[in-house]
Amino acid sequence: MTKPRFAVVLSGCGVYDGAEIHEAVMTLLAIDRSGGSYQCFAPDVAQMHVVNHLTGQPSGESRNVLVEAARIARGAIKPLSLFDAADFDALVFPGGFGAAKNLCSFAVDGPNCTVNPDVEKAIRAMHAASKPIGALCIAPAILARVLDGVELTIGSDAGTAGALETMGARHVTRSHAELAVDKAAKVVTTPCYMLDATIGQIADGAQAVVTKLVEMARP
Amino acid sequence: MTKPRFAVVLSGCGVYDGAEIHEAVMTLLAIDRSGGSYQCFAPDVAQMHVVNHLTGQPSGESRNVLVEAARIARGAIKPLSLFDAADFDALVFPGGFGAAKNLCSFAVDGPNCTVNPDVEKAIRAMHAASKPIGALCIAPAILARVLDGVELTIGSDAGTAGALETMGARHVTRSHAELAVDKAAKVVTTPCYMLDATIGQIADGAQAVVTKLVEMARP
Repeated sequence: MTKPRFAVVLSGCGVYDGAEIHEAVMTLLAIDRSGGSYQCFAPDVAQMHVVNHLTGQPSGESRNVLVEAARIARGAIKPLSLFDAADFDALVFPGGFGAAKNLCSFAVDGPNCTVNPDVEKAIRAMHAASKPIGALCIAPAILARVLDGVELTIGSDAGTAGALETMGARHVTRSHAELAVDKAAKVVTTPCYMLDATIGQIADGAQAVVTKLVEMARP
Repeated sequence: MTKPRFAVVLSGCGVYDGAEIHEAVMTLLAIDRSGGSYQCFAPDVAQMHVVNHLTGQPSGESRNVLVEAARIARGAIKPLSLFDAADFDALVFPGGFGAAKNLCSFAVDGPNCTVNPDVEKAIRAMHAASKPIGALCIAPAILARVLDGVELTIGSDAGTAGALETMGARHVTRSHAELAVDKAAKVVTTPCYMLDATIGQIADGAQAVVTKLVEMARP
């Protein structure tokens, strides 16, 4: 097989209002360690809000998801509107509140959430092409909303699991670096910081997801 | 030996105006993989400026180094003014332009740079206690300014190496994940993104520095 090509969708830069930085960076590292290549994407939209990560309180500032996500990508990022499923073998969503605030409205609307149109289009295009999709932490909530009856995990939080099931997903409990794998839908998920975790456990979780995506991307 | 305790000094969040995110996260991962513990610190000062990482241009915004660095630390960070060398076995500075813009003024003033007082105090306290100090990427410039005649590397860029030598340092050329080790000063440095690098090479560089710091921290 040629080098597997990953698209990584970021949702800002920082756990409370954007992409969880450790999960995002460990996803990129895992792709590199697996011999793959990656291109980062993010929707070119305003963040739901900006949170001061020292105090945990909203700051009143305005920031753009693509511009802030560019910090994690060292500038090498594209607007998600330019994503073409034909160019990639797998799609991955790291977690962080940004996945539930900027990529969809799950943090506010729960099971009645809406999904950013570019995010939904990317997921549907990969799914239609029978290409695998991975999601870490809270990001599986997006897949629960877009795909019908998919099996996935957000760890063991009963309230969140229940909300995913209300959207039609089948939730399975998983621990650190354990995967939920929906072979039919080609969806791979792991809890990461939805559980109390060390940074090493985040690296293990991201590597497990990426390894499985590479395996599923083989014809 | 008990678990080695690392202090990690961040300079914001993003390669162009703060801490280089991959280097910072890989440093934390390497400490965890080495069985150590870490506490993140940053000076509670305004950033020199804010750079839009999508365009590479200054944005005109104002941000605080400690508040932005808290994104990388998931909120678990302290102002550098609270640092006490007695609480740690090793001190590490990841790179990024923030090290040369917010921790010292090297990006603007070159060899005539000044160093943030809390940064200088932390380095001098660790040095006086004969505890090891690591620095990645451009961060060795800070050590060149504070410590006398220390041996270090920023990779192979002649202009930058010359500026460090003007400050009295002895520069040695190094490649990916290779170390410059000053045994007498207990200073360990590696180039990271001062060279074109993959994220895997950054992880290797951070791990090499941390492994050597753990070794030097042993009595």
